[in-house]
Amino acid sequence: MSGSVFGKCFQVMTWGESHGKGIGAVIDGCPAGLELCEEDIQRFLDRRKPGQSRFTTQRKEEDRVEILSGVFEGRTTGCPIALEVRNMDQRSRDYSGIKDVYRPGHADYSFDAKYGFRDYRGGGRSSGRETIGRVAAGAIAIKLLREFGIEIKAYTKEIGGISISQEHFDWKEMENNRLYMPDKKAAAEAEALLEKMMGQKDSLGGEIECVIDGLKAGVGEPVFDKLDANLAKAIFSIGAVKGMEIGDGFAAARSRGSFNNDRFCPGEDGGIFKATNHAGGILGGISDGSPVVFRAAFKPTPSIASLQKTVNQKGEETLLEIKGRHDPIIVPRAVVVVEAMAALTVADLLLQNMGARLEHLKLLFGEG
Amino acid sequence: MSGSVFGKCFQVMTWGESHGKGIGAVIDGCPAGLELCEEDIQRFLDRRKPGQSRFTTQRKEEDRVEILSGVFEGRTTGCPIALEVRNMDQRSRDYSGIKDVYRPGHADYSFDAKYGFRDYRGGGRSSGRETIGRVAAGAIAIKLLREFGIEIKAYTKEIGGISISQEHFDWKEMENNRLYMPDKKAAAEAEALLEKMMGQKDSLGGEIECVIDGLKAGVGEPVFDKLDANLAKAIFSIGAVKGMEIGDGFAAARSRGSFNNDRFCPGEDGGIFKATNHAGGILGGISDGSPVVFRAAFKPTPSIASLQKTVNQKGEETLLEIKGRHDPIIVPRAVVVVEAMAALTVADLLLQNMGARLEHLKLLFGEG
Amino acid sequence: MSGSVFGKCFQVMTWGESHGKGIGAVIDGCPAGLELCEEDIQRFLDRRKPGQSRFTTQRKEEDRVEILSGVFEGRTTGCPIALEVRNMDQRSRDYSGIKDVYRPGHADYSFDAKYGFRDYRGGGRSSGRETIGRVAAGAIAIKLLREFGIEIKAYTKEIGGISISQEHFDWKEMENNRLYMPDKKAAAEAEALLEKMMGQKDSLGGEIECVIDGLKAGVGEPVFDKLDANLAKAIFSIGAVKGMEIGDGFAAARSRGSFNNDRFCPGEDGGIFKATNHAGGILGGISDGSPVVFRAAFKPTPSIASLQKTVNQKGEETLLEIKGRHDPIIVPRAVVVVEAMAALTVADLLLQNMGARLEHLKLLFGEG
Amino acid sequence: MSGSVFGKCFQVMTWGESHGKGIGAVIDGCPAGLELCEEDIQRFLDRRKPGQSRFTTQRKEEDRVEILSGVFEGRTTGCPIALEVRNMDQRSRDYSGIKDVYRPGHADYSFDAKYGFRDYRGGGRSSGRETIGRVAAGAIAIKLLREFGIEIKAYTKEIGGISISQEHFDWKEMENNRLYMPDKKAAAEAEALLEKMMGQKDSLGGEIECVIDGLKAGVGEPVFDKLDANLAKAIFSIGAVKGMEIGDGFAAARSRGSFNNDRFCPGEDGGIFKATNHAGGILGGISDGSPVVFRAAFKPTPSIASLQKTVNQKGEETLLEIKGRHDPIIVPRAVVVVEAMAALTVADLLLQNMGARLEHLKLLFGEG
Repeated sequence: MSGSVFGKCFQVMTWGESHGKGIGAVIDGCPAGLELCEEDIQRFLDRRKPGQSRFTTQRKEEDRVEILSGVFEGRTTGCPIALEVRNMDQRSRDYSGIKDVYRPGHADYSFDAKYGFRDYRGGGRSSGRETIGRVAAGAIAIKLLREFGIEIKAYTKEIGGISISQEHFDWKEMENNRLYMPDKKAAAEAEALLEKMMGQKDSLGGEIECVIDGLKAGVGEPVFDKLDANLAKAIFSIGAVKGMEIGDGFAAARSRGSFNNDRFCPGEDGGIFKATNHAGGILGGISDGSPVVFRAAFKPTPSIASLQKTVNQKGEETLLEIKGRHDPIIVPRAVVVVEAMAALTVADLLLQNMGARLEHLKLLFGEG
Repeated sequence: MSGSVFGKCFQVMTWGESHGKGIGAVIDGCPAGLELCEEDIQRFLDRRKPGQSRFTTQRKEEDRVEILSGVFEGRTTGCPIALEVRNMDQRSRDYSGIKDVYRPGHADYSFDAKYGFRDYRGGGRSSGRETIGRVAAGAIAIKLLREFGIEIKAYTKEIGGISISQEHFDWKEMENNRLYMPDKKAAAEAEALLEKMMGQKDSLGGEIECVIDGLKAGVGEPVFDKLDANLAKAIFSIGAVKGMEIGDGFAAARSRGSFNNDRFCPGEDGGIFKATNHAGGILGGISDGSPVVFRAAFKPTPSIASLQKTVNQKGEETLLEIKGRHDPIIVPRAVVVVEAMAALTVADLLLQNMGARLEHLKLLFGEG
Repeated sequence: MSGSVFGKCFQVMTWGESHGKGIGAVIDGCPAGLELCEEDIQRFLDRRKPGQSRFTTQRKEEDRVEILSGVFEGRTTGCPIALEVRNMDQRSRDYSGIKDVYRPGHADYSFDAKYGFRDYRGGGRSSGRETIGRVAAGAIAIKLLREFGIEIKAYTKEIGGISISQEHFDWKEMENNRLYMPDKKAAAEAEALLEKMMGQKDSLGGEIECVIDGLKAGVGEPVFDKLDANLAKAIFSIGAVKGMEIGDGFAAARSRGSFNNDRFCPGEDGGIFKATNHAGGILGGISDGSPVVFRAAFKPTPSIASLQKTVNQKGEETLLEIKGRHDPIIVPRAVVVVEAMAALTVADLLLQNMGARLEHLKLLFGEG
Repeated sequence: MSGSVFGKCFQVMTWGESHGKGIGAVIDGCPAGLELCEEDIQRFLDRRKPGQSRFTTQRKEEDRVEILSGVFEGRTTGCPIALEVRNMDQRSRDYSGIKDVYRPGHADYSFDAKYGFRDYRGGGRSSGRETIGRVAAGAIAIKLLREFGIEIKAYTKEIGGISISQEHFDWKEMENNRLYMPDKKAAAEAEALLEKMMGQKDSLGGEIECVIDGLKAGVGEPVFDKLDANLAKAIFSIGAVKGMEIGDGFAAARSRGSFNNDRFCPGEDGGIFKATNHAGGILGGISDGSPVVFRAAFKPTPSIASLQKTVNQKGEETLLEIKGRHDPIIVPRAVVVVEAMAALTVADLLLQNMGARLEHLKLLFGEG
C-alpha cells in the first residue's frame, strides 16, 4: 500500500533509500503563483544535512536539491513539483556486518517480517535520510504559509533530561549552537553530556518544541482530520518519535476544568482571543487563533557503538558491533524535520478549509 | 472537506449531531464472511452510553444500534455496513443560554470561525455523542481482529493524578467499578476525588492506557502511514486528548540507547522476540510482534457548573453558567472509544498489508 | 476495499441493498450555508422511483428521503449530511428461483466470484435501487451548483435505435412523456416499440445525453483527474452503461484537425468563447466555458421474462425464467441518475479548484 | 489539488513538463519481490518515443529511463519506485509565436483560466510528453500482471475512418508497420491517407482497441470503483480521448436483452464461462472471466500547420501558424499509453481485491 503519501490537498509523495541513487519528493496541489527557487529549499536541507557538528555522522553529503518540474519563470505553476537530492557518498560502505543481523531498536526485523527481504544498506528506506524528502517538501509548505503570516519555529527543548529554562530562553542562541537549543547554558551542559555518552559508546534522546504563529481561527476539520490529529500523525511518522503533547499535554490530565479552560476575552480590534493557552491553540480540532504549541519526545539513537546481543535472520543469537561513527543524538537534526511536517500539515488543512463555506466559494467563482 | 472519513482500506464515515435525529457510521471495506449481529456492536455502545454511574450525564439515551445494510444471513457481504443510533432524548432542552455564547474549552468559537454558524444544540457535531459512530464502527473492527487473535484492551490508568499501581493491578476490577480502573484502591480514591470535584463544580482529566495483543510483526507502512503515526491520528482525533505516548514514550527521551534498545532473542518456536518492550511493539512504524502499548492524556471536562467569564458572538464579555449535570470526568466513558479507534487503525493497516508481497498475491490469485 | 465512496472534496459514501432495510448516502464536504430541505432531494428521487409508467417495475416504493444530520435551521452546517430511504416493499418476495442460479447479464456470478457469497434478494447491492443513494446525494450537488449558475440537464436521446431529432427537439415534452424524450414523435415511436418488446418478453437499451450549462472555464485537474476522466468514471459506474462520448466523441475519430479544432473568438463582454463546440466544453481536461456535452450508451435490461439457459452455482446447466414484471428499459429512470453523477463530479472538481491559485487563497484568508 | 495521482493501492504520481528538466513517475504500493530492471520499462518507452516513423514529431529524445529507488538486487522492495526521464532536446525552441496565443484544440486557454498563467513551452504539463510517466509506471504494472497470467494488448483499430478488418487481422503486422495496425492492407491505406493529410497540413484521429486476457472473475469493486468505471477514468485521462466503449458499447444501446445477455455455460474444468462476450468481460463492475475488451476514440491532432484564426490572451483576434513538424496522428504512439493505463487500473483493483474475503485474510495472516 501507499504509505509514502502525505496530505489530501497539498499532497506529497517521497521516495528514496539511504544508499540508493537519491532521495526525493513530489508535491501535487501547491497553488500556482508562489515564488520558488532551489535556494528556498536548500537552506532547510542545510539545517538537517550531516557534518554540521561533531555530534553528527561523518557521511559526506552536500544534499543539493534540484527542482525538476512545476516551477516556471520563478513561480509555481500548480502542477507537480518534483524535488531530487542525489546521494553522493553511498558506494563505499561494507554492510556484511548487518546484512543478515537485526540491529536492536532498528526497523531491520520488522521490514523483513513485512516484505520478506530488505535493502539493508544503511537502513534503506528506514534511514534518517528519508527525512530529506520531508524537509524539501516542507520548505515549500513553509514558504506558502509565510504568504499568510504563518510562521513555524521549532527548537530543542531537552536533551538527555537537560532542559532549556524559560528564564534563559534566547532565540539568537539557535544560531550559535548546533544543538538548536535556545538557551546557552543548557546547550553547554547538553554538549558535555553528549561528549560523555560518546565516550561510553552510548546515545541520548530529547524533546523538540514547536510553535505555529499567525494561524487564524478556523483551520482543521472536525472529527477525524482534526488539526491536532493530523499534526500527531505527521510528527509520529518521524522515525524516532515516541510521544507528543499539545498545549499543556499530559499535565492537563492532572489539571482541573476550572484551571484548564482558557477564558475567551474581547480583543482590542473587536476580535476575540484567549487569556491563556492551555489548549495549545486548538479547540475541537480547529485552530482557535492562539499559537499552536506542541512537543515531541525522541528516543535515543539506536545505533550505538557498544557491543550488543541480538539475533540474525535465522533467529540465532549473535553479537553486533555497529561500525562507523553515528549521531549520538538525532534531536538537533530533527528540529527542521518537525518544522517541515508541521508545515505540510497546516498547508494541507489550510487548503482543505477553502471549501468550508458557500460564501467563500461565491467569492471565488461568482454567483449564478 | 471531508474530515469525517477514517481509513483507507477499512474505511469509516461517521455522521450525526448531539441533538439531531441520530448518529451513525458507514463502514466500507470490511471483508465478506465475518459473522456479525447488532448485539456484537451493542455491548460496546453500552460501555459508553450515559447513565452508567453518578459520574455521567443524566441524559436518557438507550443508544440502540441498528444494522441497515451489508449483513446477510448473519455475515458481512463485503458491501458497506450502515449503522444507526437514533437520538431519543434530544428535544426538550433549552439552549438560549449558550446559543450565542462561546463556552471556554469547547469548540463553539472555532466552529463559528470556520463555518460562519453552528448547530449549538448540545455542541452539535463536536459533542461527545459523536463518538457513538466511532464505537459502533470500532466494534466491527474489534470483531474482525479477533479472528486473527488480536485483542485490544484499554483501561483508566489515572484520574486527577491518582494512578493505578502495577502491584494492585487486577483486570477483574474493570467490571466492578464504573471508572474502568483495574485497581480497586485507586478506583476508590478516584471516586472520592470526583465527588469532591462535583461539590466544587469542577472537573478532572486523566490517562487511558491501551494494549494491543496478538498482533504479528509486519503491520504498518513505512514513512507516513506508520502504525504509530496512524494510531496517533486516531487517538488525537478523540475530542479531549492532549497527549499520547507509545512504549516508554516521554521517558524514552530521557533514556539512553544502551537501555532503550530492546534486545532481539531467539524464541522457543524458532521465532524471534524482544527481551524488553521499550519500543511499545513498533519499530520503524511496523509492528514487531511485541504487544503494542500506548497511553493517552485527556483534559478535564470543559463543561463545569461554576460561573465562567467568556464572550458572546459579538465579542462582548459575558458570564456563563452551564446548566444541567455534566460528566465531571470523561475518561471512563472514553475507554471504549480508545479501543474502537485503535481497532479501526489496526484493521485498516492489516488490510493494507495484504498487498505487501508478491508471494502473498500469488497465494490468493494464483500464478500465470 | 472501499468502492462505495465517490469524490475527494465533495465526498459521498452510499450504502444499501435492494431488499435490506433501506438505501442511503452520507455526504462529507458540502460547504456550510447552503439552504436545504428534504423536498429539494425528494423531487429528484420521485423522478427515478418505480411506478411512473407502465414501462417500470411494479414494486411499490414511496422512496421517501429523510435528512438525518448536517442541516440546521434550514442550512447545511459543513458537517456530514446523512440521507436515508427505508425500503418498504422488500419482504414478500420469493427468491428460491434465483438463489443459486446465475442470471445472464447480471452481477450474480461475478459477486460470488469476488466475495464467496452474495445477498441474492433482488440483486442485493447490484440492484438498480443502489442508485437511490446517488440521486439523493446528487440532488444536493445540483442545488449547490445552481448557486453558481450551473445547470445540468439530461434526457433520453435514443431508445432501441429510435432517436430524437434536432428538428422536433422540445424541452417541454420531457414533462409530457415518461420516457424523458424531448421529442413527441420519437417518444411515441419508442413507446410502441417498447410495447412490442414487452409482448416478446424482451428488452431495449438506449442513449442519454447530458448538457452542463454555465460552468466557467478552469474546472478540472490536469492529468488524471481531468473533468472528462472523472465524468467518465462517474457515468461508467452506473450499472448498465457500456459507452460514453464527449463532444463529437467517436465521430471526432473520423474527423480532421482543421474541422475538429474549435476556433477561439473574442466575446462581446471582453471574454473569450469558442465558435464551435466539437470538444464538448473540455480542453486538456479543464472546462473551457462552452457547455459540457456528453452521451452515454445503456445496454438493454438483462432481466427479461423469456426462458434463458444458464448455470447454477455448481456450474450445472439450468433453465431460468425470471418472474415478475421488470422494466423493459432502464433509460428513462436513469436520466436523473446521469444528472446526479454529473453534478457530483462537477461539485467535487469545483471545490478542488478552489486551491488552484495563491491569489485565491489570499482573497479568502488574507495576507501575512 | 492533486490531479496527478492515480490509484488507491497501486498508486502513481507523475510529474514533468514538455520543456522542463524531465518527466517522471513515482509508484507507491508495488508489492515487494517483483523482478525489475530498467530494460523492462525502456522497451515500453521506446514504443512511444518520437522519431519511429515519418508520422511523428522530429524532436530528438532518447527517453532513457532511470530507476532511482525501490529496487534492490533486481527486485522491488515494496517501497516507492521513482522513475525519471530527463529531457534532452528542450532548450532550443522559439515559443514567441504561441506564448500569448491560445492554440485551438489545445489546453492553453483552459490552463490560463485555471492557474492565471502557464508554462507555454511545448504545452508544458499538457504536452503529450506527460504520458512518459504513465508508460513508465504502466510498464511495471504490466510486469506485475504477467505474474498472474494477465496480458494486455492494444492496437490501432482505425485511422481516419480506415478500419482493420477481422478477416485480415494479423498480430504479426503490429511489428511491421509503425501505425501498430494488425492488418497490412488497412495500414497501407492509412499511411496513404496520412501522407495526403500532411500535404494538406491537416491531421487525423482514430480508434484504439484493447484486450485484457487472463483476468479471473472477481476483480473490480461494486458501485463507484467498478472495473469499467476505473478503466474509463484511466482512458479518458489520456489527452485526446473523446469516447470509449466496453464490449458491444454503443451497439448494445441498439440491441435487445435476449441478444445482449451472455449465456453462462459449464466449462470443461468444472468452471463457468460465457458463451458470448457482449459485456466485454465485466458484469456489475466486476470481471467475469471473459477477456475485457474496450475501444477508445482519439481526436485528430490539434497541432496543424495550416493557418488558424484564434485569439490572444487579451482576447484579441489573431492568426496562428504553428511552426515545426507535428504528429499528423497521435493514435499509433498512444497504443502503448492505453496499455499502460489499463495495466495501472487492473493492478490497482487486483490489490484492492485482496481484502475482499475474510478467508483470504486468514490464508495470509493465520487465525487467532
